Amino acid sequence: MSEIRLHSYFRSSTSVRVRVALAMKGLDYDYVAWNLREAEHRSPAYLAVNPQGVVPALEIDGLVLTQSLPIIEYLEERFPDPALLPADSAGRARVRALASMIACEVHPLNNLRVLRHLESTFGATADAQAAWFRHWSRATLDPLETMLAAAPQTGTFCHGDQPGLADICLFAQLLNNRRFGLPHTEWPVLARIQAACMELPAFRAASPEEQPDAQ
Amino acid sequence: MSEIRLHSYFRSSTSVRVRVALAMKGLDYDYVAWNLREAEHRSPAYLAVNPQGVVPALEIDGLVLTQSLPIIEYLEERFPDPALLPADSAGRARVRALASMIACEVHPLNNLRVLRHLESTFGATADAQAAWFRHWSRATLDPLETMLAAAPQTGTFCHGDQPGLADICLFAQLLNNRRFGLPHTEWPVLARIQAACMELPAFRAASPEEQPDAQ
Repeated sequence: MSEIRLHSYFRSSTSVRVRVALAMKGLDYDYVAWNLREAEHRSPAYLAVNPQGVVPALEIDGLVLTQSLPIIEYLEERFPDPALLPADSAGRARVRALASMIACEVHPLNNLRVLRHLESTFGATADAQAAWFRHWSRATLDPLETMLAAAPQTGTFCHGDQPGLADICLFAQLLNNRRFGLPHTEWPVLARIQAACMELPAFRAASPEEQPDAQ
Repeated sequence: MSEIRLHSYFRSSTSVRVRVALAMKGLDYDYVAWNLREAEHRSPAYLAVNPQGVVPALEIDGLVLTQSLPIIEYLEERFPDPALLPADSAGRARVRALASMIACEVHPLNNLRVLRHLESTFGATADAQAAWFRHWSRATLDPLETMLAAAPQTGTFCHGDQPGLADICLFAQLLNNRRFGLPHTEWPVLARIQAACMELPAFRAASPEEQPDAQ
């Protein structure tokens, strides 16, 4: 059994993703907390782990892996069971695309450092930041809802009846949405999938409030 | 031989990525242009192809694939030679992470729709938009430079001496940077890799100015 160490922040959406994947794969790990609100991810101690100064980072097999989706792809290759991606290339492309819609179009625009930069650069108030958050969430989650509702591949989860990479990204994003006054009720299919995820111990255990650094 | 159709916009950075991958794999395709400046990607005709209304989309094998990195992963699985990812999991994780730094942290903040939203919401001038672009480029390209300079795996390209997924993302981003007054000279390693990419016909052929819809 390899020793695994996760560098994380309880509320970080990208950290949530990796925590769900680790839990689904049944992997134990040491949890190392870095408080983003106190800029601990910019400390020399953390930059020695990940020179980019962002969480999560995963120490595994003598490597330091960064970026949540590549970390999960690595876990998928290294510990294939249970699978987080479908067995067929078409299915994998679909699941990766759904995950990418969230990972490349929603989350990057809505994380803490962006909201702070809006404040410092344009004087964006808390209300303006929340409006920005909602705008970019809806810009992608609206078509995501449409695509999931229309596709025969959609099942209990984003792709069939087993949870996977797309559900992981959706789950982390919708948890985040709660903090900005975005009820899941805008998106019935997303809300239904989120409820199905919340039934699973691996997803619940990865939630921010379950982490040792939760505040 | 499968019939392939790429929905693209000449200047779209994510379209550039897929064009490079198609060219590297030696795949011929029909080019379908959608003018983003004229909102053609929001037209019913395009929404019938991709309900999300973003380019690129790739029609292949009877599928409509979306999201540039998942499209490239599909091409990699379907047409493995030449490889765009290393053969080992550790190498694949590194290349995917380098690609993800650009795809999930630089480009999402700097594309046209975001700059337009800054203008309409906060009254950001062209100068303020360019400053925003440079801020988020540097926030990730600075540590990317550091990581590439420090890693023994870095060669002529981001990972060894063969071009791959990370180079594709870097190439597309640095082309974009030219338009916002960001000279590559800030990042010597990135500039060196970009120059190596420009030596290759597949990269040159994917450049915006080589496309049928170039203006």
